[in-house]
Amino acid sequence: MNLDVAIIGGGVSGAYSAWRLQQENSGKARIALFEYSDRIGGRLYTVTIPGLPHVKAEVGGMRYIPSQHLMVADLIDHLGLPKANFPMGAPAPVGASCNIFYLRGKHLRMHELADPAKVPYNLAWSERGLGPTNLQVQVMNTIYPKMSDLSLCDLMKVKAFDKPLWRYGFWDLMYRTLSNEGYQFMKDAGGYEANVANASAVTQLPATEYSDETEFLTLRDGYDQLPITLAREFNELFAGTVPRGQRVHMNHRLAEIEIGKGDYPYTLYFEPTITTVGDDNQRQTLLKTKAERVVVKAKKIILAMPRRSLELIKSSFFEDKWLKENIPSVLIQSAFKLFLAYERPWWRALGVVSGRAVTDLPVRQVYYFGTEGEQPHGQPNLNSLLMASYNDISTVPFWKGLEDGAPYLGYRPACLDPATDNVIPPMEFQATDEMVQVANRQVAEVHALPEIPMPYSAVYHSWNEDPYGGGWHEWKANYRLDEIMCRMRKPVASENIFIVGEAYSYGQGWVEGALDTAESMLQEFFSLKWPDWLDESCQLLPNPCPGCGDLDGCIPSKDTAASLSSITPNCQAPLPIS
Amino acid sequence: MNLDVAIIGGGVSGAYSAWRLQQENSGKARIALFEYSDRIGGRLYTVTIPGLPHVKAEVGGMRYIPSQHLMVADLIDHLGLPKANFPMGAPAPVGASCNIFYLRGKHLRMHELADPAKVPYNLAWSERGLGPTNLQVQVMNTIYPKMSDLSLCDLMKVKAFDKPLWRYGFWDLMYRTLSNEGYQFMKDAGGYEANVANASAVTQLPATEYSDETEFLTLRDGYDQLPITLAREFNELFAGTVPRGQRVHMNHRLAEIEIGKGDYPYTLYFEPTITTVGDDNQRQTLLKTKAERVVVKAKKIILAMPRRSLELIKSSFFEDKWLKENIPSVLIQSAFKLFLAYERPWWRALGVVSGRAVTDLPVRQVYYFGTEGEQPHGQPNLNSLLMASYNDISTVPFWKGLEDGAPYLGYRPACLDPATDNVIPPMEFQATDEMVQVANRQVAEVHALPEIPMPYSAVYHSWNEDPYGGGWHEWKANYRLDEIMCRMRKPVASENIFIVGEAYSYGQGWVEGALDTAESMLQEFFSLKWPDWLDESCQLLPNPCPGCGDLDGCIPSKDTAASLSSITPNCQAPLPIS
Repeated sequence: MNLDVAIIGGGVSGAYSAWRLQQENSGKARIALFEYSDRIGGRLYTVTIPGLPHVKAEVGGMRYIPSQHLMVADLIDHLGLPKANFPMGAPAPVGASCNIFYLRGKHLRMHELADPAKVPYNLAWSERGLGPTNLQVQVMNTIYPKMSDLSLCDLMKVKAFDKPLWRYGFWDLMYRTLSNEGYQFMKDAGGYEANVANASAVTQLPATEYSDETEFLTLRDGYDQLPITLAREFNELFAGTVPRGQRVHMNHRLAEIEIGKGDYPYTLYFEPTITTVGDDNQRQTLLKTKAERVVVKAKKIILAMPRRSLELIKSSFFEDKWLKENIPSVLIQSAFKLFLAYERPWWRALGVVSGRAVTDLPVRQVYYFGTEGEQPHGQPNLNSLLMASYNDISTVPFWKGLEDGAPYLGYRPACLDPATDNVIPPMEFQATDEMVQVANRQVAEVHALPEIPMPYSAVYHSWNEDPYGGGWHEWKANYRLDEIMCRMRKPVASENIFIVGEAYSYGQGWVEGALDTAESMLQEFFSLKWPDWLDESCQLLPNPCPGCGDLDGCIPSKDTAASLSSITPNCQAPLPIS
Repeated sequence: MNLDVAIIGGGVSGAYSAWRLQQENSGKARIALFEYSDRIGGRLYTVTIPGLPHVKAEVGGMRYIPSQHLMVADLIDHLGLPKANFPMGAPAPVGASCNIFYLRGKHLRMHELADPAKVPYNLAWSERGLGPTNLQVQVMNTIYPKMSDLSLCDLMKVKAFDKPLWRYGFWDLMYRTLSNEGYQFMKDAGGYEANVANASAVTQLPATEYSDETEFLTLRDGYDQLPITLAREFNELFAGTVPRGQRVHMNHRLAEIEIGKGDYPYTLYFEPTITTVGDDNQRQTLLKTKAERVVVKAKKIILAMPRRSLELIKSSFFEDKWLKENIPSVLIQSAFKLFLAYERPWWRALGVVSGRAVTDLPVRQVYYFGTEGEQPHGQPNLNSLLMASYNDISTVPFWKGLEDGAPYLGYRPACLDPATDNVIPPMEFQATDEMVQVANRQVAEVHALPEIPMPYSAVYHSWNEDPYGGGWHEWKANYRLDEIMCRMRKPVASENIFIVGEAYSYGQGWVEGALDTAESMLQEFFSLKWPDWLDESCQLLPNPCPGCGDLDGCIPSKDTAASLSSITPNCQAPLPIS
């Protein structure tokens, strides 16, 4: 097989690159997309649990912020995919203010975080009365007024205590701006350990997007419909030199890239894989035994893969000095999501409808999802979905320790399509009986209930193993991320091998980061034009993109007085709390 | 070079194996020891800070427990190495009872842990009044009376809630036996995060050796004198087929093992390394450029190396199915130690002399070491040593984030040998100015002092990088560690390649574990006799050592009534607290 462009990785950045190139070339270029598993989506992975056809379980990425993720929003509108709200609390006027926090053995509603007497952390006077997000905003404003308005290049210029922000680990900087109890509170009550990890302060500090007031959207039929639609359109639409339906190659593991000469300098060796669901209901993608490697020649390669997947490829390409130094410039963060399906939304009685509860128990975050009967076109029953745990980094080993043992079998709920023969969807991971028992007990404790019903179904995914490595990535401190994110897209000047995806982007952990690296790479190195459907105000990585250059000098502020006066003072209630 | 036995790794298990084999064979066998760096000791690493010639800084392993580590104790006595006490508190009658705890922003002396009103954790009623060690003892007795008396094979038989202990991660089991606050207290106040990690409950649960009442010893001239003495005696004593002084090969990195046939089936390829100290005072061991690989042939190989070092060797040996499955059976735990030298032991005024303070600040544990003038033959001055931080696992990234920047230069203390030209010893890692400032500030906060003097010198070592991988190892849950630790010593039946060291032992993190695997391996596979100097009651891995076999059935208890009656009740004071 001789290709103009070989794209590796069926996640959102790979599917998008294939779709864009196919459209722009009107099918004249020979392009193919290769994927390790039998699934398009990568770390977007939507599961439909029996009895809940209209309430999707997103075991990977689950949402976007339309006000910030302009490219995701425009692309979804362009593709015409039906959207759905992703509320973070009850309907107005309650909102998130009654969301539950269970910290250090004490129950609080969110609005009670404003009362220092109730918060079980020995906070400094300057920290009292603030929730974890506002605490972070206060720190940001201490270091630079209205820091959240600064561009990446301005953030790269900011100094704190005479040292550039990009040389700080976030935790190291917090140690100099908060009490240890303030940091612990931010960590415990924020829910995400990754948000307080000792990664680059440039990207960690202004990241307050997880505030309980942020407005999120998702896709009604599952967030993985975005890459699935892109891959399908790439495969099926437009006539072309590669016939319809033959452009996407599933179950191909890229093992090796050889670099040669001539018209097709790159030889790619793929190992065929096979995805099976065994009698035990487990889904597995394994290397095919005794299968010959598939050899593909290509002019250009797009590696749409995260750090660990790249590290698993054998190639002299990765011996390049710059690449060897900068592939490790990001931390790989592990994450874990467990969904439980119940016959009734027992949590509603406590006044919680959507959004999350946060705790320092190993479940860390509980998210409330919908009830089938309330969805548009939903079946008339009360089957309901809870994400019993969304946790990351140091709590992941707690759950990994419960992976062995008898699987949780669930039970047949009263309202279920009679044709359904198994309430547990086949997955790469299978929730064990002990895991579900332990999670359910923690969820009960978070809600201060002596007992809650056992779920009729359970699914989980652990994002820490090969080929993904982790759930998302974070820039390490002491790296010039402005330069690395530009160059990583074409890391070796003499080679037409491109790297895109969330891992080395300015939107890590989000689809927006994956699309930004892909689109900006296509414009700069494949000469693609700005797409019609994309708002011109969308801030892609610039073209060309060398980085911010010299970081010394003044940070210009268009309206100094206005930027200062808009800082909300930390005085007394009424304050927005989150 | 043709060898009967090639031993790789100049840590304690490698030096010991070489010494024992040379003695037993009276020099008739051709044996050589190879070491990556220019230093014998591995993770025993003693540093002498200027001004403190008689107060050693142990940046690696620092002590042993004579009542438990019989082989270490007997070996040290046999070699005639001078010992020193390693007290964990002030002289009697105060002992450890006035050691400082600083948790959740609150200062306590150890004896105050007995007062639930003072302990800033929302403990369950059943947990109150206990320190972290006694809390663990209570949990152990809840699961099995006098668990600490059980042998490994009996521990492998113990079940908790109908599941074998060896299938539990420690944290998973604690979740079922303690409140979350109880676990957090055990974690924070215990000092070592590794002790509460989700590793195998079989080895984690009975490990209460870090109690503040444990009696420790160390070596007066540095703990690395043990492997250094063994390697020197191996190299210098006894005539032999390999001449004196030519048996130890420093600066040899084992890159590859080829397995062939004939009298010398193993071909070892070593890459020469070079250790330098640059103008910047940094010690580095790097691969020599353009140096040819050293080829050695051997009949047998002893790999005296931890998990990560093994993983860095290229060989078809590691493709063996059992080995591939079981090399990952242990967790690699990172650790960090920072020593600060002061002109005076300012901490004595607070009544703390020896032992440690424990905190949830990132320094985690502060250890008080001696004053030069108080040592036998010490110089008459007050120069004093503090280990400002001994921390592991999740706090290590905090300190790694402070590694870049200007080095801490210290200053010339008033009492110093005039010949000394640099107060900072050359090390692989160099403490930065920011690291020392931050650590010193945390140490002041732990002692509730507004300011403490800056240290005149600082050294640290971070045990998380190649070739060591980490500071020590812990068995993972769900592995038959009884079988693995036996078989790992000769993992592939058809090959004479042996693996020894702390990593896959029943004494992980201790020299005793390293010596146990080495001595039991030598007895079983090299037919060495029980050494004269070793007490017969010392419990080595049995010979032969297949593991515990079938784990079902009753655990015999010699004196059931006595074992039950000796459990100390958790009622009220006076209780021993730790």
